[in-house]
Formats: sequence, C-alpha cells, structure tokens
Amino acid sequence: MFTLHISPGACSRASHIALAESGLPYTLKRVKFAEAEQRSESFLKINPKGRVPALETGHGVLTETVAILAYIAQVASVDGVTLAPADPFEFARMQAFNAYIASTVHVAHAHGRRAARWADQSSSHADMTAKVPGNMRDCFRLIENDFLVGPYVMGEQYTVADAYLFVMGGWLESDGVDIAEFARVAAHHARVSERPAVMRALEEEAAL
Amino acid sequence: MFTLHISPGACSRASHIALAESGLPYTLKRVKFAEAEQRSESFLKINPKGRVPALETGHGVLTETVAILAYIAQVASVDGVTLAPADPFEFARMQAFNAYIASTVHVAHAHGRRAARWADQSSSHADMTAKVPGNMRDCFRLIENDFLVGPYVMGEQYTVADAYLFVMGGWLESDGVDIAEFARVAAHHARVSERPAVMRALEEEAAL
Ligand SMILES: N[C@@H](CCC(=O)N[C@@H](CS)C(=O)NCC(=O)O)C(=O)O
Ligand SMILES: N[C@@H](CCC(=O)N[C@@H](CS)C(=O)NCC(=O)O)C(=O)O
Repeated sequence: MFTLHISPGACSRASHIALAESGLPYTLKRVKFAEAEQRSESFLKINPKGRVPALETGHGVLTETVAILAYIAQVASVDGVTLAPADPFEFARMQAFNAYIASTVHVAHAHGRRAARWADQSSSHADMTAKVPGNMRDCFRLIENDFLVGPYVMGEQYTVADAYLFVMGGWLESDGVDIAEFARVAAHHARVSERPAVMRALEEEAAL
Repeated sequence: MFTLHISPGACSRASHIALAESGLPYTLKRVKFAEAEQRSESFLKINPKGRVPALETGHGVLTETVAILAYIAQVASVDGVTLAPADPFEFARMQAFNAYIASTVHVAHAHGRRAARWADQSSSHADMTAKVPGNMRDCFRLIENDFLVGPYVMGEQYTVADAYLFVMGGWLESDGVDIAEFARVAAHHARVSERPAVMRALEEEAAL
C-alpha cells in the first residue's frame, strides 16, 4: 500500500495519475500549502525538502517526480500493467523527457509563483514573472516539434510521461499561454483528460 | 561506441565520469560555449535544447544527465560493471538523488551565470546572483545531513550519483561556498577525486 502526499493541482498530480493508472492500492494525504504544512516539523520528517510529491512505500519514502513515476511504472509492470517502455533505450528516452520537464519546464513555471526562491526584491520577482509565458512557450514549442512523438509522448504506448505532460499542459493557462498555440500538445491534453484514471485522480483531488 | 558532447567543467562532466567508470568505449566532442556552438544549427540537430550533455548512441541521441547516467549504468551492468543499485527501490532512491541535483541544485547554481534565462534586467540578475551562495548552502546542508549515506551517496556502493555529486561539489567554490562547511560532502569529494576514472575524465577535459 502506497501513501502519496500531494497538494491538489501541484506537480504531485503526475504521480497521483500514475498510481491511478497502475491499479496499485494507494491512499492520499493532503499537504495544505495555505497553512505552510509542507514546512511543518511532521512533514519535514517525511520529506526534508518540504515539497510534494512524497511517496511512502514499504521500503521507505521516495521523492522527486522523475523517480516516483519510474518506480510506479516498475512496480506496476510486475502485475502486467505497462506504464513505461520495456526497451532500455526507449525507457531512457522517457526518463529524458521527464527529466526535461522537472529540470526545465517545471522550473520555468515556478518562476511565476515561487520567484522568491531565487531572488529577494519585488522588482526581480515582477521581472521573473514577466518572463514565464515566453519561457513556457519555448519549452512547449520544443515538446510540440521535437519530443511528443504522438499520439502519446513515446508514440503508440501510453506511459507515465503522458501524465507528467498532461499536468504541465494544465498549468499553461495560469502562465498566460493558450495551449491551442500547440496543436499536437492540445490534442494530447484532450486525449489524456478522457482517461478513466485521470478523471479519477482529478475527482479525488477535488474531494480532498 | 558512444559519442558524448561536453563542455569542460559543465554538468556534462558527470556523464563523462560515468562513461570512464563504465569501461565502455567512448569519444568526446567539445561544444565551445565561448563561440555559442551549443546554439549552432549543427548542434541543435543533435540536441534541439542547445545544451550539453548529449550522448550519441547506436539507437539515437540521449539528453538530460539524469537519464544519461542511468542509461550508462544500465549498459555497463550488461558487462558486469556495477554503477547503480540492482534493487528497484534503491535504484529509485538513486534516481531521486540525481533528480534533486538536476531540478534543484544545478538550477540553484545556474541562477549565477545563467540568470538571463529567467529575468531580463541587470538588477534582477544581481539579486539572483546574490542568492546563489545561500541556496547552494541549503541544498548541501540537506545532502550532508539527509541524503549522503556514506561513504558513497547510496552507502557502501559507488554509483553514478557519486559522479554527479562530485561535479556539483566542484562548483561550490565559484558559488562562494567553502566545501569544508560540509565535512561529509568534503570527505566524499576527496574520496571520489582519487578514482582513476575521475582523474582520467578530468585529464581528458583539460586536453580537449
Ligand atoms: N523537483 C521536485 C519539485 C517538487 C516541487 O517543487 N513541488 C512543489 C509543488 S509543484 C512544492 O511542493 N512546493 C511547495 C513549496 O515550494 O513550498 C519534483 O519534481 O518532484
Ligand atoms: N537539465 C539538463 C541541463 C543541461 C544544462 O543546463 N547544461 C548546461 C551546462 S552545465 C548548458 O549546456 N548550458 C549552455 C547554455 O545554457 O547555453 C541536464 O541535467 O542535463
């Protein structure tokens, strides 16, 4: 049994969707950002980084979306549920896609709401926020033209990378970018949104 | 045969060390940052993101340090060279460590030299640069106290995570942080610097 620590709408949604797709049993725990619970003593014992997602497993706690997604895919595969390519090079390409999201796309987005991580003055924060739409556009142009094979990220096979891209695509509107600027990404977003596991995860987050 | 595109001293050094450790044959290609070669038409055909590392393999190009390190470990294991834990959960923990470096530590460092990615005004760049030492300290405090098991990142076993931590530790001085503030990280850095594969990689970068 897994326990996933999440905040509704945060990047933890990708891990949440992956769990819903996996068929593995899980429970959710909400970390209330409005009450700064991510920096509470009790949560820092689970994840000293003070962030979601954090996945409690029978072996210990796992953090970082890139690692959690691959691990869920690995555990699911034991039960015959395929959420990642079996071929080692294709698996590595999926990891490269997810690592690009974590290290570049998510980071570009975070410069809007979380600019205070990297600068102190409000004029800097405004400057950083103003650059978010352009940076997100640059990222999504690369995804649209170079990385999204179609119909899914890795081609015919749905993988955990699709859940991660779906979550990033859902952030574009709040970043001042119209997803329709990227026709293939927009079609992918609509396709993934109709998956029962995705609908289940969104309902669970709304009810949390 | 692998071809690794690198810039001496850049984050590509982690992948370079992993290749040297693996015993697999490889050649290096230098991407000259001073001449903006990373944004040249010919390099963008290899990696449209315009960054190093990029690993040319018999199956295609692989990018992103987190993915390249795990892939090198996987290919090396076929020849009996162990550069990652065999246990799936321990492997996921190594990936979490590497993903933290890529998405948080490397990003914290990049706000010094590469502030222009996220803001336009020189006052913002100065503000971001001023925050680099404090952010790097926060990251290394977590690594020192919570993540570095010792003597290696994952414990008794040397893995590709050690190469990645070694490269980040080597950046601290230029970030205005004395590695000696973190006794266990400093001892790790010294230990890793003595490995023949690490010395080979540093010599190859100096000669490039
Ligand atoms: N590199 C981490 C990033 C995790 C992260 O930044 N999570 C955000 C939510 S999207 C968070 O917990 N923010 C709370 C805070 O910054 O206080 C990952 O990919 O899992
Ligand atoms: N997320 C990538 C980041 C790669 C990256 O930022 N590389 C830097 C060197 S450390 C680069 O190529 N910079 C050139 C530039 O920004 O123009 C990874 O982990 O491999």
